[in-house]
Amino acid sequence: MEEWTVKVEQSDNKKEKPDTEQLEFGRSFTDHMFVMDYSEPVGWHDARIVPYQPLTIEPSAMAFHYGQSVFEGMKAYHAQNGDIQLFRPDKNLARLNHSNDRLCIPPIDEEFVLKAIKQLVYMDKEWIPKAEGTSLYIRPFIISTEPYLGVAPSHHYKLIVILSPVGAYYKEGINPVKIAVENHYVRAVKGGTGEAKTGGNYASSLKAQEVVGKQGYSQVLWLDGVEKKYIEEVGSMNVFFKINGEVVTPALNGSILSGITRDSVIEMLKYWDIPVSERRISMEELYQAYLDGQLEEAFGTGTAAVISPIGELAWEGKKIHVNEGEIGNVAKRLYDTMSGIQYGKVEDPFGWIVKVKEAAPVK
Amino acid sequence: MEEWTVKVEQSDNKKEKPDTEQLEFGRSFTDHMFVMDYSEPVGWHDARIVPYQPLTIEPSAMAFHYGQSVFEGMKAYHAQNGDIQLFRPDKNLARLNHSNDRLCIPPIDEEFVLKAIKQLVYMDKEWIPKAEGTSLYIRPFIISTEPYLGVAPSHHYKLIVILSPVGAYYKEGINPVKIAVENHYVRAVKGGTGEAKTGGNYASSLKAQEVVGKQGYSQVLWLDGVEKKYIEEVGSMNVFFKINGEVVTPALNGSILSGITRDSVIEMLKYWDIPVSERRISMEELYQAYLDGQLEEAFGTGTAAVISPIGELAWEGKKIHVNEGEIGNVAKRLYDTMSGIQYGKVEDPFGWIVKVKEAAPVK
Repeated sequence: MEEWTVKVEQSDNKKEKPDTEQLEFGRSFTDHMFVMDYSEPVGWHDARIVPYQPLTIEPSAMAFHYGQSVFEGMKAYHAQNGDIQLFRPDKNLARLNHSNDRLCIPPIDEEFVLKAIKQLVYMDKEWIPKAEGTSLYIRPFIISTEPYLGVAPSHHYKLIVILSPVGAYYKEGINPVKIAVENHYVRAVKGGTGEAKTGGNYASSLKAQEVVGKQGYSQVLWLDGVEKKYIEEVGSMNVFFKINGEVVTPALNGSILSGITRDSVIEMLKYWDIPVSERRISMEELYQAYLDGQLEEAFGTGTAAVISPIGELAWEGKKIHVNEGEIGNVAKRLYDTMSGIQYGKVEDPFGWIVKVKEAAPVK
Repeated sequence: MEEWTVKVEQSDNKKEKPDTEQLEFGRSFTDHMFVMDYSEPVGWHDARIVPYQPLTIEPSAMAFHYGQSVFEGMKAYHAQNGDIQLFRPDKNLARLNHSNDRLCIPPIDEEFVLKAIKQLVYMDKEWIPKAEGTSLYIRPFIISTEPYLGVAPSHHYKLIVILSPVGAYYKEGINPVKIAVENHYVRAVKGGTGEAKTGGNYASSLKAQEVVGKQGYSQVLWLDGVEKKYIEEVGSMNVFFKINGEVVTPALNGSILSGITRDSVIEMLKYWDIPVSERRISMEELYQAYLDGQLEEAFGTGTAAVISPIGELAWEGKKIHVNEGEIGNVAKRLYDTMSGIQYGKVEDPFGWIVKVKEAAPVK
């Protein structure tokens, strides 16, 4: 890309903002979006902020047929002092490139795209809701657009960033959820795409979710695809357990997504001198810890919920009750600190916060 | 769907047809396409044939984010006697519904969609090329279109059928290909989506293909995702081996696509009283058969190539040479008979051919 400039076309038809009280996740979108095209041999080009609008795209575009699509999810927070804050956005863009590599999508310039995202967020800053727990969800995604039905990497792509004001994840306080351990369906396997953030991973997870949803569970706990013994993720989150004073999370093994909240939790626990380890952990071990009275906490981690405590796990006809269905002390402290940092209520000793300020247009 | 009618809007801007000699796969498309929408609670509705045109679709449409997309591939052949022939299209539509089920997409009415496809093919029949080995590729696909970023099955879909005239797969005669056995990347695993025809499966296959392509191989041979021992597929085809007089293909195990050419090959071999078995087969067994001089043939099967003979397999530093790099007798007989049936040169004792004729509009 020769010209590191973002062209801006202002929307002259500003939409009405949704009622903050009624905000759902991912239903309404702001006035603008960022778009950049890729074609060969030019590379990424024509970076632009334009009014939010439908795409015009060929029915033969490869994204519709061969699933070459990757995405990221992060948030802009309205801080207590009025600042606009992002949380470790560099990590998201690094992961986007990791996903790109797995799906043969050409890499983006992470620094440039971050600048463009900041410019976009600043332009639509009136859309960042201010109520407790609300935020502006940022969704960068890349789709293959070449009008061609051959099974091969596309030669044309679009990177698009859209923004959506979202309500508080925990409107009625944090209530631990009931989870079913999945023994039939598999999310991912080593050598597959589990560690990339690609559309196909989410499509393949829907069925299991549908099945357990009907049985009254919020999510599934995914086991490894090889032996169906070892714990991988929960729903679309990473998962942690506190066993006999130590916090344990499955080690990244090639099929687990490298979550940014996961990484932040590990760093924070180390900072607090709370023992934490990334290792393989089986359901058998977890169940034994429960029987021994050593399973103290269980929680998922992700951008949407930050921390999502697990109150009950159903596994092969057995039930595991965690901390009497209450959020645990470590989970609570992690949630309060992490969201405190995000909303500027708590000091950030990690250097995770990136401020969005008015700046000269990206060059 | 209350009203089983296909509305027709004729294109008044007919495109120039590509030169038959220059035809590539999946690059040019005909004058019309079939579209049908799904929304709740209406179900599938508004079936229509319209001029081939770009889609207008929200950037938040779920297909771009969570990979809820499935497809099929089949062909219309211009038979020797001038008939237009389809090959087992009912199987494709049944498999489309199987894929739908895996990805939580509502089922289509297979009979109705087949009628609509026939009507579309008949309308664009001038696009079916007539030269040896050419055909009209038919691509039905379904995408999720709800403008929503929640990870859940979409409430809105589009089924689209597009048509593409395609050249002969074997322009310069059938030359067996060199295949690399894939030991790192995995196409699918039991409990995943391998047996569904979903975009994500193809996206995940690109990287391995790219790696071996640089080493001079045409495709990869996929092993099972659990033990990386057992043979599953070759490239985007099913795979067969003739070992000591018996034709063997991996049994459908939950991670292998149930190919229609695969099924037809099995039926045809049975009809000819050639021993055929569907079972688990390991690379170890295959290599031993090769050392013992019993590996007589190897070939892939799929809609595009029909039969694609394998001349060489590279596995863990070892080379397996098959039939001195020539197509084997069984592969040749299968190819000639199968394509003979498709082009109406050979009698069809199986009832596989479905004729496309002018008919009253679908009701």
